[in-house]
Amino acid sequence: MLRPPQRQRSPTILEEQHIRGLEVEKILAGDRRAIARAISAVENGTPEGIELLKVIFPRSGKGVVIGVTGSPGAGKSTLVEKLAADIRRDGERVGIVAVDPTSPFSGGAILGDRIRMQSLFADDGVYIRSMATRGHLGGLAVATQDVISVLDAAGCGVILIETVGVGQDEVEIARHADVTLLVLVPGMGDDVQTFKAGVMEIADVYVINKADRPGADRVEQELRAMLAISPRRGGWDPPIVRTAATLGEGIPELRAAISQYRHHAEKGAMRERRREQARGQLLEIVRQRLLERVLSQISSQALDACADDLAAHRRDPHSLAEELLARLDSKGSGS
Amino acid sequence: MLRPPQRQRSPTILEEQHIRGLEVEKILAGDRRAIARAISAVENGTPEGIELLKVIFPRSGKGVVIGVTGSPGAGKSTLVEKLAADIRRDGERVGIVAVDPTSPFSGGAILGDRIRMQSLFADDGVYIRSMATRGHLGGLAVATQDVISVLDAAGCGVILIETVGVGQDEVEIARHADVTLLVLVPGMGDDVQTFKAGVMEIADVYVINKADRPGADRVEQELRAMLAISPRRGGWDPPIVRTAATLGEGIPELRAAISQYRHHAEKGAMRERRREQARGQLLEIVRQRLLERVLSQISSQALDACADDLAAHRRDPHSLAEELLARLDSKGSGS
Repeated sequence: MLRPPQRQRSPTILEEQHIRGLEVEKILAGDRRAIARAISAVENGTPEGIELLKVIFPRSGKGVVIGVTGSPGAGKSTLVEKLAADIRRDGERVGIVAVDPTSPFSGGAILGDRIRMQSLFADDGVYIRSMATRGHLGGLAVATQDVISVLDAAGCGVILIETVGVGQDEVEIARHADVTLLVLVPGMGDDVQTFKAGVMEIADVYVINKADRPGADRVEQELRAMLAISPRRGGWDPPIVRTAATLGEGIPELRAAISQYRHHAEKGAMRERRREQARGQLLEIVRQRLLERVLSQISSQALDACADDLAAHRRDPHSLAEELLARLDSKGSGS
Repeated sequence: MLRPPQRQRSPTILEEQHIRGLEVEKILAGDRRAIARAISAVENGTPEGIELLKVIFPRSGKGVVIGVTGSPGAGKSTLVEKLAADIRRDGERVGIVAVDPTSPFSGGAILGDRIRMQSLFADDGVYIRSMATRGHLGGLAVATQDVISVLDAAGCGVILIETVGVGQDEVEIARHADVTLLVLVPGMGDDVQTFKAGVMEIADVYVINKADRPGADRVEQELRAMLAISPRRGGWDPPIVRTAATLGEGIPELRAAISQYRHHAEKGAMRERRREQARGQLLEIVRQRLLERVLSQISSQALDACADDLAAHRRDPHSLAEELLARLDSKGSGS
């Protein structure tokens, strides 16, 4: 068994602590600039960022994480904006994280969100952050979880995670949420059919947005048909809520459905889910760290030489990977 | 530097070789059953599958890999079906791989593809395979690449990869292709805007499908505006092709655009791209193998205990991951 942690940190020391420019006290108090700096540090996985997380993590865990996923064009940003505004009326601090697929144009994403969510930018109790995925070697799930921890420790009672895509990583991120919403729209054509094979079953609450448009009945019908043949998870019958986010319609109903799910989940499903999430998160970090070791221990010349052999089909990828691993192992035991 | 491979395999031995039920000769001859069994083995990453890949890999590398990505409902399956049928008329063998996000309902996905692509199922020169992603610990990119190698070795001159989602993993898979198509449709609303921040720039050729519907001009306009401010990659100006796949319209024009890109890329871009892909593929395999080691060396009780500590917010994830890694290291040097 693992031993309990050796280091004990007292809250007094904690709150006085500055980790190379990251002011813990200000973060915990909800200072926007301090939070922004902290998020950048953890998103980039800097040593200071990781140190910071270790310090503030015990202060997190109170916020509710709501994942919002669905096709591009489903109106997720507007829905998130309206949900956030509604939650703000209760005086709760709200964090919003928009997760985009990799883009050399990530500036565009941030700008887009800012324009779309501009009604919230003037509000001191709302923290908005766009995260571009950082290159093809992964780590997005880890970084998102870390950003959530910062917002949570900073006192956000609700953290909304909007994923732009509907791929594997986005499903993964949605799973890290306490509650997952899947947003559909009328007129998606084969969509319910397509989603059926994929992300459909991850949702705790289904949202038919733009429900003022024609075709809402048909989407709901298809959705109900799909749910009828789906296995129920943990005795929960996922509700379908209709919204017209741009008109502000259906938002209270959506919040009620979210509350109902949370109430239901507290009876047991939540604990198992959080444990499952924790297991996944740990393995993700371990995997990421191992990869970082690989990258630091294998010279880029050696990797390039292997890549050339592979690209020219002189050697097969698995034999080459085994050789790289063998080099790593011999280095590991040698140093 | 890495030493050249020790083992030399003569073609004669190769073709006689049976790797526990995987008949190399039959695979290379294009036997559908043998190919299906081989794909299952490499997709599941069995030792036999990996052994098979090492044997057949030198026979691969001749096929052209075309990645087809875009939103659900954009008509990708139909487009792929029509492209495949058109290519078949030249007598070329065609492989089709449909990559879906994780699903407990993966049977549904396969069924759906079969129904949608049924015109091809009777054709002995077409190999269709749906791949569900296998759990949240990744490996999809590796598995897809391996399946491509099998189809390639089996004599497919063209391999079409259709990704159902538009997330990080799908972008990644599209990058493994020699040519990447992004499929848009009229009436996607904010889509060009949303894609702009994400997957937009990965495409070599843009397809506006369902171009017989109203709104095709607008999508094209938005797309051109977006491309005008995008950095050009390798001197290539990505063309925009209109199709109406269900009507079979625009397919020859699309094939011409693909050929043009390939002709352009052969001048240099292709080599750099293949090298980049090879580098990514090697690191992916290394990462996957390292993770498999972790899972085999850390007891599930130890992992559960850590997960419980994390879920209860008693310990932070990074400290716990560091402890797990330390255990791994001490085991590694001990055994």
